Amino acid sequence: MTQLNHKTTDPADISIKPIGIVHSCFTEKFGIPRQPGLVPAATGSIELYDWVEASSLDDLGVFSHLWIFFHFHQAAKRGWKPRVRPPRLGGNKKVGVLASRSPQRPNFLGQSVVRIDRIDQPGGIIHISGLDLLDGTPVIDIKPYIPYTDSVPDASEGYAFRPVHTLEVIFSPESLKVCVAYKARYGRQLKQLISQVLQQDPRPAYHQDNRTYGMRLWDINIRFSINQQTITVQTIEESHYAHTT
Amino acid sequence: MTQLNHKTTDPADISIKPIGIVHSCFTEKFGIPRQPGLVPAATGSIELYDWVEASSLDDLGVFSHLWIFFHFHQAAKRGWKPRVRPPRLGGNKKVGVLASRSPQRPNFLGQSVVRIDRIDQPGGIIHISGLDLLDGTPVIDIKPYIPYTDSVPDASEGYAFRPVHTLEVIFSPESLKVCVAYKARYGRQLKQLISQVLQQDPRPAYHQDNRTYGMRLWDINIRFSINQQTITVQTIEESHYAHTT
Repeated sequence: MTQLNHKTTDPADISIKPIGIVHSCFTEKFGIPRQPGLVPAATGSIELYDWVEASSLDDLGVFSHLWIFFHFHQAAKRGWKPRVRPPRLGGNKKVGVLASRSPQRPNFLGQSVVRIDRIDQPGGIIHISGLDLLDGTPVIDIKPYIPYTDSVPDASEGYAFRPVHTLEVIFSPESLKVCVAYKARYGRQLKQLISQVLQQDPRPAYHQDNRTYGMRLWDINIRFSINQQTITVQTIEESHYAHTT
Repeated sequence: MTQLNHKTTDPADISIKPIGIVHSCFTEKFGIPRQPGLVPAATGSIELYDWVEASSLDDLGVFSHLWIFFHFHQAAKRGWKPRVRPPRLGGNKKVGVLASRSPQRPNFLGQSVVRIDRIDQPGGIIHISGLDLLDGTPVIDIKPYIPYTDSVPDASEGYAFRPVHTLEVIFSPESLKVCVAYKARYGRQLKQLISQVLQQDPRPAYHQDNRTYGMRLWDINIRFSINQQTITVQTIEESHYAHTT
């Protein structure tokens, strides 16, 4: 057996080469759901780098769900903290970072389960939904979700119970028109996406006042106001500077 | 949005520093269950390195289950393959490595859900069971299992259905005596561990003949024979060279 008196040894670093990159509707941090699966209309894709042969994806289509392992590349710039304030606890109680899913963790590694919508194998692209990942996130591994081993429905939920949403989302007539036009042009369910994201109440836990907010999804800017339990989507505009694809 | 014409770019490597090491009853590869949770009597621990502060473990005890992210350090020595033969398919059909949980994958990253038995926070040690990890495995992250987001019981199982075991395990009188003495000395449920491991049929898929095998668990050597659907544990001996702890 391995020896137990090695705690102070400096372990050798492991070098990881990203296998792909995430393309996501979430082009900024604000609005990203706090866990995967909460926003089924959130769509995106994983694009593999050329060094990962397309035959690696053979037979992936027999599975419905996928684990994505990724690098919290934005959090990595800020460093990790032994204790963090999870949004589930209102942002005013600290827990150990290894008792949380916070990005500010040692090694900045993340894990998400998403739905597989479609696989473009020659292109090395997996189209996914239900994701909670920032556009441009480096992917370091993907694995099929295997329910008999990964699904533990009776595990204790600790403090991380399923959120209950009571916010109602209404759209201004102009913003609804933009949703219809956007869907016609890109095939994206923009209205559902905005509704599901806003129902989560994307405001930081320490910032629950009533005012107007801006949020970006795909290449569009959304302005909405919050008044008690009602969110009103006021304007939706395509942002020109983001047209890189 | 990120550009799509970057597939051939060489992504920057990410450097990972192990946060801890696994101590496991599985001191060799032979006998390790093919998924976690199949052998509840499999016990071990995760010991954090000193660079990870013990306060990182605050509040972990409110959860019952833990994700372990680790490096398949033995597989890393052999390299990765785009297509692999999963044991679930009898070892005679290949699938894409990203449609498998094979260790021979890009970056050699593994993921296991285990049960938290007890946390020795000042020592930085988490005692776990149901593990499927080799002793000495480098741990790169741990996260609490959150059922509302991690449990997807209706995900399609693909080819990875729960194994059905029909092997019966019987013990010779001498081997039973060793189990009783070992349990008295170390508090380890050796008989249950051996039974549960052998019920899985640890033989490689391409090697289903009837003969005598050797297997190591903790610091003991087990010899057993297989005859049709019956496994007989013949001898159990403590191995002296392994007494490093």
